[in-house]
Amino acid sequence: MNEFELIHRLTRSLPTNPSVVVGAGDDCAVLEAGWPDRLLLFKTDAVVEGIHFATGTAPEKIGHKALGRCLSDIAAMAGTPTAALVTIALPRTFDPDFVAAIYTGMSELARRHEVAIVGGETTTNPGATLISVALVGWVWRGKGVLRSGAEAGDAIFVTGELGGSLAGKHLEFEPRLAEARWLAQQFPIHAMLDISDGLAGDLRHILTASRVGAELLAPAIPISREARRAAKAGASAKTSLLAALTDGEDFELLFTVASRQAVPLLDAWRKQFPKLTLTCIGRIKAGEGVTIRDKQGVRPLTAHGYVHFA
Amino acid sequence: MNEFELIHRLTRSLPTNPSVVVGAGDDCAVLEAGWPDRLLLFKTDAVVEGIHFATGTAPEKIGHKALGRCLSDIAAMAGTPTAALVTIALPRTFDPDFVAAIYTGMSELARRHEVAIVGGETTTNPGATLISVALVGWVWRGKGVLRSGAEAGDAIFVTGELGGSLAGKHLEFEPRLAEARWLAQQFPIHAMLDISDGLAGDLRHILTASRVGAELLAPAIPISREARRAAKAGASAKTSLLAALTDGEDFELLFTVASRQAVPLLDAWRKQFPKLTLTCIGRIKAGEGVTIRDKQGVRPLTAHGYVHFA
Repeated sequence: MNEFELIHRLTRSLPTNPSVVVGAGDDCAVLEAGWPDRLLLFKTDAVVEGIHFATGTAPEKIGHKALGRCLSDIAAMAGTPTAALVTIALPRTFDPDFVAAIYTGMSELARRHEVAIVGGETTTNPGATLISVALVGWVWRGKGVLRSGAEAGDAIFVTGELGGSLAGKHLEFEPRLAEARWLAQQFPIHAMLDISDGLAGDLRHILTASRVGAELLAPAIPISREARRAAKAGASAKTSLLAALTDGEDFELLFTVASRQAVPLLDAWRKQFPKLTLTCIGRIKAGEGVTIRDKQGVRPLTAHGYVHFA
Repeated sequence: MNEFELIHRLTRSLPTNPSVVVGAGDDCAVLEAGWPDRLLLFKTDAVVEGIHFATGTAPEKIGHKALGRCLSDIAAMAGTPTAALVTIALPRTFDPDFVAAIYTGMSELARRHEVAIVGGETTTNPGATLISVALVGWVWRGKGVLRSGAEAGDAIFVTGELGGSLAGKHLEFEPRLAEARWLAQQFPIHAMLDISDGLAGDLRHILTASRVGAELLAPAIPISREARRAAKAGASAKTSLLAALTDGEDFELLFTVASRQAVPLLDAWRKQFPKLTLTCIGRIKAGEGVTIRDKQGVRPLTAHGYVHFA
């Protein structure tokens, strides 16, 4: 049983109440909070030593990643984060300076996005350091973007460049909060998420939620310099394209919009965010599954994203 | 450096923003959410195998405790919980039925208090099972009860009976949500918390936050049957009184109210909650520190509550 199968089993019959707009299964939970114009966002995410960061990683970067992953999920809903609680589980013997430096990395990122850290706890965890961050935020009513709104014919876009994140970006990425809010304010975005498991795997989350398929254009996939370098040096068993499709931890935005909006959106984006690439990588189609088109023709894309508990 | 010293160091200069009403240091964070009549409550709490529950504990009870601790913190603010997110960190090999049973225990408690479980995640944690629960809730503006409002002359009350919780209650307690809300609606409660570290230790949290002292009446302390039994059987090195003062994990409410309200409050409580004991155990005094009065006189209470990382 992998992570997704287990989650499916656990989330079949969870307790609910009238506050729940979106429960388990999207980037954040969405709650009716009684505001006329807004909805509440609620998210938790954990990083574990040896899985999400290597032993010996600079603690400031661990803190940055722990909070950044949660912020990226708020971005994926086009939301605004408000406040975070931090749980740090540590071996019985630990260096207080290590913990303080985790907070330093987290606090710098929090300040940049005007997020308050309002408490949390430290507890003992034999074996590994684990950091769980809980976030509350909000989104304008009607401007939140779920995974389930993609429609046949939509253009598929991705921000930034993909692949090779483990070379460093996974510890240093900037959550695309401003970009996602701008997108949702300026254009009717149909579906969006942040890429954590890899483009090929996360695109499937949009397709499953929206009951559609997709075709990607291989030459259009934006491949990062790190992925190209690793493939060239023979440091990776993957081609650079496969790395961009499956490496994961890119924390870029993947979204769909009606095809007639594609060109105006690209034009407006380049004026608004000249330093961040935005690429149309394919289109949503009726049916199911993902195909990829290159010079040799159209093939089913069987490569799938990183699956926890695989 | 113990848990409290570390927390003090980490929380000296946390990022903040205008939404923060109460940050680190009380039972929950309190946030201004733009509601005319309410404030947002936000809390996380983690339980770890080998620390908060023994290996081999029934998973339903683990789930009950994990959520119950968080609900008890919402109760301590006189709040109402709305929705929970659940993070379960598990060894690489685990039994899906074990995880499902944790959710069963959690879900039963959630349904009883009309709390939605809106998602979360499972992740790998070498060494131990760890469950972190995040909760959002709300409290009526002006009815929230902090730790910092105790005043000299106040009567000190505690619900239920204390000590010996490890015999079973720590896995089965019912969070005092209805009781706390009723108290805050009916009487001007000055300060309140839920007893997790032990009466002697947690009372000090109220005293420190309120800059006052206290005198307890030894014969008034409500001692649980389990604490009496353990002391009688010689199963514990503690007297039953010391167990009631320091065992911890009682998850009962400890609160203070102006002394003129003490008798009306006790009368009203007995009509409202005839099955749950409420006891006046002493009074708040000017100055600092805790003394305890018994037949032999007044002594400083040096016994302190359970300190994590001690």
